[in-house]
Amino acid sequence: MSKTYKTGIIGSGSWATALAKILTDNGQQVNWWIRNEDTIRHMQLRHHNKHYLTSVYFDTHLLQLSSDLQQVAAASEVLILAVPSAFLEESLQVLPPTVLQGKKVISAIKGMIPDSNLLINEYLADCFNLPPEQYFTLTGPCHAEEIANEKLSYLTFSGLHLDDAQNMADLFTNSYLQTTVNNDVTGVQLAAVLKNIYAMGAGIAHGLEYGDNFLSVLIANCFREMQHFLEKYTAWAGPAQGPEVQHNYTASAYLGDLLVTCYSLHSRNRTFGNMIGKGYSVKAAQLELNMIAEGYYASKCIYEMNDAIGAYMPVAQAVYAVLWEHLNATEAFLALEKGFV
Amino acid sequence: MSKTYKTGIIGSGSWATALAKILTDNGQQVNWWIRNEDTIRHMQLRHHNKHYLTSVYFDTHLLQLSSDLQQVAAASEVLILAVPSAFLEESLQVLPPTVLQGKKVISAIKGMIPDSNLLINEYLADCFNLPPEQYFTLTGPCHAEEIANEKLSYLTFSGLHLDDAQNMADLFTNSYLQTTVNNDVTGVQLAAVLKNIYAMGAGIAHGLEYGDNFLSVLIANCFREMQHFLEKYTAWAGPAQGPEVQHNYTASAYLGDLLVTCYSLHSRNRTFGNMIGKGYSVKAAQLELNMIAEGYYASKCIYEMNDAIGAYMPVAQAVYAVLWEHLNATEAFLALEKGFV
Repeated sequence: MSKTYKTGIIGSGSWATALAKILTDNGQQVNWWIRNEDTIRHMQLRHHNKHYLTSVYFDTHLLQLSSDLQQVAAASEVLILAVPSAFLEESLQVLPPTVLQGKKVISAIKGMIPDSNLLINEYLADCFNLPPEQYFTLTGPCHAEEIANEKLSYLTFSGLHLDDAQNMADLFTNSYLQTTVNNDVTGVQLAAVLKNIYAMGAGIAHGLEYGDNFLSVLIANCFREMQHFLEKYTAWAGPAQGPEVQHNYTASAYLGDLLVTCYSLHSRNRTFGNMIGKGYSVKAAQLELNMIAEGYYASKCIYEMNDAIGAYMPVAQAVYAVLWEHLNATEAFLALEKGFV
Repeated sequence: MSKTYKTGIIGSGSWATALAKILTDNGQQVNWWIRNEDTIRHMQLRHHNKHYLTSVYFDTHLLQLSSDLQQVAAASEVLILAVPSAFLEESLQVLPPTVLQGKKVISAIKGMIPDSNLLINEYLADCFNLPPEQYFTLTGPCHAEEIANEKLSYLTFSGLHLDDAQNMADLFTNSYLQTTVNNDVTGVQLAAVLKNIYAMGAGIAHGLEYGDNFLSVLIANCFREMQHFLEKYTAWAGPAQGPEVQHNYTASAYLGDLLVTCYSLHSRNRTFGNMIGKGYSVKAAQLELNMIAEGYYASKCIYEMNDAIGAYMPVAQAVYAVLWEHLNATEAFLALEKGFV
């Protein structure tokens, strides 16, 4: 029998909602921080999130809904972070620096902290003194819409110690969710960040009316670029990043997640990129979609990080230049075309 | 300036038609063997292939159409094979064994010879004494429909000597077709065979109503399986297969071609698999689509070859069992699900 924990979820977007569904489907009590009181009232009355995955109905007896983040954090042994990376700092700033003492934290965020360019574990270590053995990350090809429909999906739980990661994974495993564990905490986080940039690229290519043949070549080249970046990153970061681990590039947390993000029509990063390729400005795409996709911030983080790392990453660089430096998308892709093999 | 050759194309399906378009767009004279006299008459009159890629119009001054294979072969210095693998032996049996003397042969076939399980170069060496330096293979993510629309595509030309492969590639390179060369003649052929099996698998999964999350995990696992098979094959075949070469797995001829075949709606293998997943029998799918996809034969070839090679390939084996041994597709995939990472 798996261990039980008091769990808490921070965030109320589609991914947070999907994770709440998985945990409550598994009979788990969930403390759920939702910023908006009206969303909480609606969920108490109608048993679903009125904004995201509206078809998912909850057993509200299992939910402790609250707009008080400190209360949710205090009541939880395992805290799951599921807000967009750009809002994490702002969301958590109300918490005292000692709040995570003795708690386990699972990041379900597929991004980095903007400006400081920190991975989520680095940020939590800096601001909340979270020790590495209490941090886990949850990655994999897992569009929330398919969790809502209980389509079989795969999540990878990464932690310093595999047995702890397995305990976290056990909370989520069920008939529509298969889990695996590894200790590749840094690698899978970086892969999750990179794949959003590449999905932007795939979207831009689609918007520019490249076809399926080109798209497959682009994504194969992105996969090579991802591996190259991770190798250069590992060499650059050195032993300071913790024990050296194998990156299992063909596993679902790497190639699987890259593929679903680049190909699935559920992918917000691809959709955003598609609009850029069709000529929308970043601002206009953001207004139209009512969000900024993770890949937008990710492209800036990785671009800045790569100053020190020096990986050869023409696709990520092209996406950055199109999104942040107003480079014409057609020109950016004409330059890319020549280099693909 | 690139060398010029008298070229000949054998076959009149969609891929043969796309290749004829590329060559004639490059101003190349083409001897074109088309079995059906009526198709030839129609093309002479209407300047297009009435059965395939009907939107492609040819400058018929550049075409020498003939239903006489011996004549086409005799008139050509470079012979391009573009018939389904299952029909190659039957098509070529009219030719005298010395017909390929001094000629270069480019295989555009993405399959093996059924029953004998020979790669195309092995078959040509056996039956026509074709020396390895006169053989080339053309692979890559290149659906004919996108060539028809002049969507930028990538082809890889593989040959024993890179400069000869480059001469072949130069015949095809143009504004919508980028080419690369390597000397990985065996590897790319096997990858092209395997990817059709995996596209069948992707189609079956789609037909069984698995979602995008699962599909991406399946394809990532197929990519790992492909690499594993090639490593085991190389060890098994040993130096008899010619000089050892690097397999560039993230290149377009490997991962790129796998992706387009598994994901594109142009993919006949995926479409065929999809019908199997939805419950059609092989016979019914064949009748409905009016063809048997390459992956059907490929799954049997690889299954039989793997007797000696001993690679662990659960996906290819499941596809084989569903297509050839009437294993229920739902059961086959339930067994697969558990093993994915």
